[in-house]
Parts: sequence; structure tokens; C-alpha cells
Amino acid sequence: MQLEQVHACIIPTTDPHISEYTPDRWKTRAWISGFSGSAGTVVITNDKAGLWTDSRYFLQAEEQLKDSGIDLYKTGLPETPEFNDWIASELSEGGCVGIEGDVYAASEAKSLIDFLSGRNIKIHTNFAPYDSLWENRPAIPSNPAFFLPQSFTGKSCRDKIKEVLAEVKKNQADLTILAALDTIAWLFNIRGNDVDYNPVCVSYAVVSENETVLFISPEKLTQEVLEYLQQEGVIVAGYEKITGYIKHIPCGTRVLVTPAKISYRLYSILSEKCSIKETTVHPADSLKSIKNEIEIAGIRNAMRKDGVAMVKFLIDLEKALANNVMVSEMDIDAKLRTYRSEQTNYFGESFKTIAGYGAHAAIVHYEATPESNASIQPDGILLIDSGAQYFDGTTDITRTISTGKVSDTIKRNFTNVLKGHIQIALAVFPAGTVGMQLDILARQSLWKVGQNFLHGTGHGVGCFLNVHEGPQSIRMNHNPAPLEPGMVTSNEPGLYLAGEYGIRIENLVLTVKAKTTEFGDFYAFETLTLCPIDTRLIDSSLLSPEEIDWLNNYHQKVCEQLSPLLSEEEAEWLHNGNEI
Amino acid sequence: MQLEQVHACIIPTTDPHISEYTPDRWKTRAWISGFSGSAGTVVITNDKAGLWTDSRYFLQAEEQLKDSGIDLYKTGLPETPEFNDWIASELSEGGCVGIEGDVYAASEAKSLIDFLSGRNIKIHTNFAPYDSLWENRPAIPSNPAFFLPQSFTGKSCRDKIKEVLAEVKKNQADLTILAALDTIAWLFNIRGNDVDYNPVCVSYAVVSENETVLFISPEKLTQEVLEYLQQEGVIVAGYEKITGYIKHIPCGTRVLVTPAKISYRLYSILSEKCSIKETTVHPADSLKSIKNEIEIAGIRNAMRKDGVAMVKFLIDLEKALANNVMVSEMDIDAKLRTYRSEQTNYFGESFKTIAGYGAHAAIVHYEATPESNASIQPDGILLIDSGAQYFDGTTDITRTISTGKVSDTIKRNFTNVLKGHIQIALAVFPAGTVGMQLDILARQSLWKVGQNFLHGTGHGVGCFLNVHEGPQSIRMNHNPAPLEPGMVTSNEPGLYLAGEYGIRIENLVLTVKAKTTEFGDFYAFETLTLCPIDTRLIDSSLLSPEEIDWLNNYHQKVCEQLSPLLSEEEAEWLHNGNEI
Repeated sequence: MQLEQVHACIIPTTDPHISEYTPDRWKTRAWISGFSGSAGTVVITNDKAGLWTDSRYFLQAEEQLKDSGIDLYKTGLPETPEFNDWIASELSEGGCVGIEGDVYAASEAKSLIDFLSGRNIKIHTNFAPYDSLWENRPAIPSNPAFFLPQSFTGKSCRDKIKEVLAEVKKNQADLTILAALDTIAWLFNIRGNDVDYNPVCVSYAVVSENETVLFISPEKLTQEVLEYLQQEGVIVAGYEKITGYIKHIPCGTRVLVTPAKISYRLYSILSEKCSIKETTVHPADSLKSIKNEIEIAGIRNAMRKDGVAMVKFLIDLEKALANNVMVSEMDIDAKLRTYRSEQTNYFGESFKTIAGYGAHAAIVHYEATPESNASIQPDGILLIDSGAQYFDGTTDITRTISTGKVSDTIKRNFTNVLKGHIQIALAVFPAGTVGMQLDILARQSLWKVGQNFLHGTGHGVGCFLNVHEGPQSIRMNHNPAPLEPGMVTSNEPGLYLAGEYGIRIENLVLTVKAKTTEFGDFYAFETLTLCPIDTRLIDSSLLSPEEIDWLNNYHQKVCEQLSPLLSEEEAEWLHNGNEI
Repeated sequence: MQLEQVHACIIPTTDPHISEYTPDRWKTRAWISGFSGSAGTVVITNDKAGLWTDSRYFLQAEEQLKDSGIDLYKTGLPETPEFNDWIASELSEGGCVGIEGDVYAASEAKSLIDFLSGRNIKIHTNFAPYDSLWENRPAIPSNPAFFLPQSFTGKSCRDKIKEVLAEVKKNQADLTILAALDTIAWLFNIRGNDVDYNPVCVSYAVVSENETVLFISPEKLTQEVLEYLQQEGVIVAGYEKITGYIKHIPCGTRVLVTPAKISYRLYSILSEKCSIKETTVHPADSLKSIKNEIEIAGIRNAMRKDGVAMVKFLIDLEKALANNVMVSEMDIDAKLRTYRSEQTNYFGESFKTIAGYGAHAAIVHYEATPESNASIQPDGILLIDSGAQYFDGTTDITRTISTGKVSDTIKRNFTNVLKGHIQIALAVFPAGTVGMQLDILARQSLWKVGQNFLHGTGHGVGCFLNVHEGPQSIRMNHNPAPLEPGMVTSNEPGLYLAGEYGIRIENLVLTVKAKTTEFGDFYAFETLTLCPIDTRLIDSSLLSPEEIDWLNNYHQKVCEQLSPLLSEEEAEWLHNGNEI
């Protein structure tokens, strides 16, 4: 910092592709701080250092920052300053802040520049001393990519490029640049192994009328992938070639970019000569989010397989508890992985399993470690949030399970969460509706008794892609992306009582057309996930007749869909005790 | 236009105060087009002219534009271009568009300038040839203002100024300029007669640490008002002096403005020398929207008086229909006015009564005219939306009334609207919740059967001020202003079947604190309006037990509150037939 006359530097969590989860190569924030959570920002000045992270990670961060000299700033608390305000208060006018433009979203960097320039603080957007400081820094991953056939993707790369290009033109642009790894994997019908749980490969892409170029390290490309790309008219270039390519885009070219999905480095090269057309949601992400018929059929298939694995696991667990066999949170993780891996076209988990017993489940992003690993007691409730990547689809399911005696209060709380889940499942809404409009359906039963959950109600889910994708969501915050037919979204209300227990009920839902009337098109959700909801936790006096019908119909559907895939004994278990 | 080398001019509906309803002086759009609706924009080019207005006014505009040479552009239809796109397509590069900066919101003008400059079209922001063209143009109103005592306002002008000033400083500004007439009336505890139904007076105000200045024509000021203002430390200056005052604000002064609430003319004078701090919602509007204890007590009083007037009217109507006495839509208007004017502290109506029988009620902004005036038949339903200004509060109520035999379909539709109304009335929500989050509660019962209503569910209501005020609303669109305790908002779901009938049920609700838990503060609505809902239109099999309870409790409260103010016979009527 002294060498480059920088008085403060900011280290965010993202990578050159503005990923939510990054390859080890770009875990700079974790490397410098020792804090391994999925969200957080480190700021370093000449005499201070701070980590800003949210409530999910307060405990973990305190632990991991011990003796590091880095102070913890708990975001979301009224007394915690924003890190940019903190920097402004630490630096004097004329000071300089360093960021690594290559791993900073253009949107974030631009607001930061605006903010700092208003305070006469300079910014050095190419401050990246980490390569020389970081011993044994991991390389950019070189795992092979693989081709996902049209029997899974339902659409050729060539057709997808055509659709993206049509949208680029609609936005009055000549060319677009893609940096988001899931968008690129979707567009080229390729998958990879570069990020844990996310089947993507490190790459960039450019789509223009003249050519479509995939920038990817040659060592990643098998003959099969190469031949497919060639056949679809795609030009392949080295990963590092993106910078030179962008520098040589003819002056005045109109380039469509989503500033939240591209690095500030690429954005600023572009802005030198090109006319940048900004879009909040990239049309390729919208296209990706709307699943085609083949993808939907694949997802239904994945749901059946995942349901089978879940049912086998639940039966095992019930037996173990009945026979006083010790089961730990980490055993659950392993057991689920085993049952899932027995399914056809299994690729891996879609995220790290959360299996939390009792008070552990009140920690929303709990991850069992050898130190924390609790054994399940026949008393209370257990929350399990898990999912898998199959070639035909991605799953994400949460069930809260009674492990023995539960109080009336737990039942009341579980039932209020269930009411929210069912109200979302039953929603009908006109075309154009956004998630913020629906969100209250998941919360009204909790709000009425003064409770709430502070995470979103729903996130988009990819098709054999990231378990978190956009553009849609169902949240208390505004997101202008409407819920369109073909989108897959989670429906996951919950309730967390610190030190006691946590409840969450999560199914994935597909937006479908419900009806067309003189008032326009109306959409609804079809629940995709197939696994029983624990009726031992329900106080049915709190459910409306409509809610009871939904639950009984859901369980009937689960039985019908899964029984043919189960043993007689397993099917028997599934049939019993689910009607209320 | 030729003289000033303008190739197109735009004439909006607003005035120098960006009012929703304007004094006649500024009804330029109505004068030039003959179209008298409350919303619309006229654009004139060398060889064409168009009026853009929304679906509420399609029929009326077609009628009124006949033989005017002005084409009707129906906004909201997919085939209708936005007027700015239309201008861009009509003018060639280098063309010039004229607007009257004095009656154009700064926010609107700035987006227009952005839009046109991107197309190389110039803008003349001081194009105002109307004075010389408009024969007998009405003068700026010179009606007297009057003082509203603290027994109604609950807070002195001096205290309000202090609160506004504190917010100005919080926004890092030195000074603020107010142009919104209701905000000024609130701040200075004055009212006036300058706009139909809105008890405001034409004026501007400046609040700074050094001084507070009210710019108002001296002829409007009675001795009482003058003395009050003097006592509160307010400097009074002539209405026209605002321009000179702004020009002399010291260079570099930080000025807080809400660009949607100030004219482009004033905004651009300010932006020459001052540092403008923009805010979407002016803090004075937020303060005004949160009613104090005295105001709330006054509003409750106004609700009782309005309820008495409504009940007397409903009894009259029922008798007339039973005795085959002819009653017309315009009779209803007159009768309601009579009953309301008998109440203490009555000032006038709060908007033009909408009394629509049968298909007329399907026209959301229907206004009975001598030509349309229908007589009520003992068959079908009648929609009445009306309200009053009392010194102690503003009312706004809609009831849909059975006039005789009604079909099961009407009952089903009415009950679905009622369910939405009750769900809003029963809502509980955490601090920070905005109207868009609640809106679905009013619509879900309609959406489930493929119906909808295309107006908002709720608008803010002033306290002896405008019947429409901000910042809050309950709508399908996003509005970032949260619903705060002390705000008064309408709850008015509806259903409109063109050519058949219209349904709307409207009460005003007060946001109140409901409870505080470990999850924070929760708010709820208290229904303020006191008038029975027609139970003859209800299919109670569609209501949940909770909804039936709400309705019965509501009717019990109406009886308790109004009976002491009614004759024995009237109270008897109120007690009968309301329980379901």
C-alpha cells in the first residue's frame, strides 16, 4: 500500500466473474483474513483492518478473526457504519483507496467512485498486490469442461445464441459480453468442475452479429466439446484473450452489459471506446431462467430421484432413532450423499448440506464441523437443507423433522411456517407480478403472531446449474424481475428461535400458466419437489380447509410419483400417516 | 411555435406547484384541447396534435376531442406510443421541443431533456405563449386563506418548522424550498379555497436556519393569519417574490428539493449556483403524513359525523326505493352533500361524488352529468364514492349497495372484493413494510378467480387537506415509502365489469403499533370509517371464520359509535340485519 500510495484497500468476496461462490484462486478475502464465510468485505488502512459481514456469520467471524488484528463490523446493526462511510471517516481528503478492478463488480466500483469523489478521495482501481504476497496461491482451475447433450438442455447452442442476439439487438446494441459462469455454461451447453457445487467452468463470452467467441483455457476442452462448439459456429479463444479482444472492439460499437455481472476492469476498457448500453438484468439470464419443455421434464425426473433418496434417508433415520442408534449431523450429510449418489445421472451436491439439530438449526447457514457435530436426540426437531446436481436438473429441499416428543409451541410455530409455504404454493397472480408482491403470503401467519424470518422466501434455481440464480426472487425487498412461466423458484419460509430451534420448509416451484380471462393472463406455481412434510409437527386446527386440501393432495402426489420407484416396505411407509 | 422556432410543444396537466388538481388559471391543457379529465398530456407539432390519456378517460376524451383536430392516444394499450417516442418519430434531428418550465415537474423535465438530447433534439424550457393566446384566462386565485387553530392541527407552526429544519440538516442541506400546496398549508397551519375540494392556497415556502418565508399574495392574508405567522416567526413575502429570492440564495448553499414536487423553472434557477440535494420523498411530506394525537382525535370525530350523514342517506335511499320514489345519480350527490353539510365544522366535499348505478359504476371515475344521469332501479347494485372536508378531518368512503334483487354472481364478486378489504384490514406487518408488500392481500381472492382491479388499493389521505396525499400508498407498483404509525390510508379494492356493474368497498385505515417482539416492531391497521357494509350482497359461505368475525365486530363498532348520534329509528335501522 505504501509503495502504491494507497491509504486503504478493499477486498470483496467476488471474482472476475462476480460469482457468489468462487474458485479457490480468488478467495483473497478468506486468505487475508482467515474468515471463510460466503459473504464479507475486508478493508485495510495503514493502522486498522476490518471485516464487514452479516448476521449469518457473526459467531463464525468472531472465532476466525481472533488474534488476526482484524476488527469485526456486524452489518445490519444500527451502530455499524457502512464500510465506505468508515473509509471516508478514516482517510483525510486527498487520500487514496485501492481496489482490484478485476474482481470488483462494475456497478459496485462505480458507486464507490461516486461516493469517494464526493469526498475528495481518490481511487486506484488496479491495486492487486496479492499474487506476490500470497504464497502458494491456487492457480486458475484447469478442470475439463464437458458437453451437456440436447437431450438434457433441450436447445442447441446455435439457437440460444440466436435468441441472445435478438435480445441484444432489441436493446439497440451490436455486441454483448458475458462474464457470469452459469450464463456461459447455459449458452454453450457445457458444464464444468471449477466451483464447488456449481457445475461451471471459468470463461468469458462475446456474442455479436459477426461472431460468437468463447474465451476458455484450451486445456479444459475435450475433443467432444471442441467439435460441438465448432459445429455450432462458436469461435474458441484462450481465457486471457478476452482483454485484447475487448480492446480491439471497433470504436463506437454499442455494447450491452449488466454492470452487476461484469468486472470493473472489463467495463472500464469497454467504456473507453464503446457506447455502453446498461441493463439491470441481462437478457441471457432471463432466457436461462425460463426453462424449456425438455429441461422441465428433466427437472421433474431429478425431483423423483431426489424424492426417492430423501424417503430412503427419512426411513433410515426413523429406524435409527427408534432403535437408539447414534446419528450425528455429519452422519446425515454422508447418508444423504450416499442415497443421492445411487441415483442415475448424479453429479454431486448442489450445496453443502445443512443438518442442524435443536439450537444449531437456528443458525441459518449452519455447517456441522467435527467440533460442533451434534448427535440427534429423540426429543425436538431437526432441520435438513440439502440438494443435488443431476445431469437432468438441480434440487434444493428443506425438511424439518420431529425426532421425538415436541411441544405444542413447536407445533404451532411449524404450522404457521407451513401455512406460509402453502399460501405461496396456492398463489395465483397476473402476468408481470414480481416476488415482492407475493412474499407476504409466506409471512402473514408469522407476522400476525409477531414472528418473522429474515432471509428471502424464494430464489431462482438453475437447471443442472447454480442452485442460486436470477433474475427472479421472492423477497421483502424489491426486485423488478417478474415471475415468468418456466421459471423454477424455491418456496422456503422458516422461523429461527436463537438457542432453541429452527424451522424451514422448502420445495421448488415452477411458474405455470393458470388461466386467461378478460383481465389478462394469470400464473400459478406447480410444486416440483417430491417428499413428505412431517405431519407429526402440524397443529391442524390452525390450517384452513383449503390448506389441509393442499397438503393432502401434495402427499397423494408424492405417493403416486415415488411409490413405483420404492420397495414395497418403503412405499408402505410413504402411504402411512401423511393424511391429516 | 414558428416565432420561437419550436417544432413540437408539450402541455401537461400540472401547475407551478405540480398539483394533481389545479386552479382554473393553469388548466391550459383543458383550455387548448377541450378535454376536462384530471389526467392527460397534449402534444402539438406543426401539422399534428395528440392527447395522451388513460383508460379512465377514453370515452370522455373521444367525446370531447370530436372535431378538435386532436387525435386521442390511449395510454396503457400496447399499440400506443409514449408521447416522447412519438415526438422523436415526428421531429427530425436538430428539431426543438417547447415546454413551459413553470408548470413542468423538474423530474419530468430532466428525463425529457435526457431523452431528447440522446436523439439530438433541442428543448426550449420556457415556451409559454398561452397568456397572450388564452382569452379571459383566469387569474391566479385570490381567495382568502384562513388560520386552522392548534385545537385541530395539534402542533404549532413553529414546532413544525423546527422538525422540518432538523430533517433538512439530516439531509446535509442548509435550506429547502416547498412548492406543494398541501405541504405548505400543513406547515403554516393555514387553509384556503384555491383548488376545488382541496383546502389549500397558492403559495411557496422556504425553510432555512436563518429564516422561514411564506410567499403568498398579500390579499389572501387576513389579520388573524398575519398575526399568527408573525408570532410563529414566519416572514411573509409576495407570491411572485419566490423567483428573486431563489436567485439571491448565496452561491454554494445546499438546497434540499424533491424534483417531482418542484417546477423545472425553479429547479434550474437553483441549480445555477446552489448544490442541490435531491430526495424522492420530501421530509415535510413524511412529517405531514404522520398524524399527531390531536389530528387523529379530529379524524375520528370527522368519521363519526360522516358515518351519521351516510347512515341517514342510506335510510333515505332504502325508503325511497321501497316506495318507488324516483332517485337519480345526481340526487344522490345532492342528498349526501346536504346530510354532510348539517354536520359541525363541515367545510365542503373532499372530491366530486361518484354515484354510479349499474354499468355506470364500471367506469372507475364516473361523474353523473345531466345527460348520463341514471335513475336507480330496484334491481342491481349502486356504487357511491364520496367524502367531505371537515375542519377536524377529511373523509373518503365507498359503499356498494344492493337496490333490489341481485344475482349469485354479483354476491360472489362482492364477497371476493370484501375478502380483499378484510384481509387488508386484518394485516399485521413489521416496521419498514411498504404498500406493495401488502397489496396482494386485497387481490388474492380476485386473482384466484381470474379477476383484478387496475387502480391502487390505497392512497394516503390528508387531515383537512388533500384526499390524495403521499408518500405512502398500497399498490401493485413499487413505492419505497413505508407505512408508518399515524398514517391514514384508504383500503379500497374493487371489481369492474364493463357494461355490467362496478363494486368497490372503501374505508380509511390508520396505521397503529400492534406489538413489539424479539423480531422487532409490528404494525396493523385500525379501520376509521364508520358505516355499515351491505350484508345483502354477501355470500357468507365464501368468508373464513376470521373474516366473518371482522365484519361482525366492525358492524358492532359502527353501531356503538354512531347510535348515540342518531335518532331511535335510525339507530334501530343500524342495529338490524348487519350480523352474518
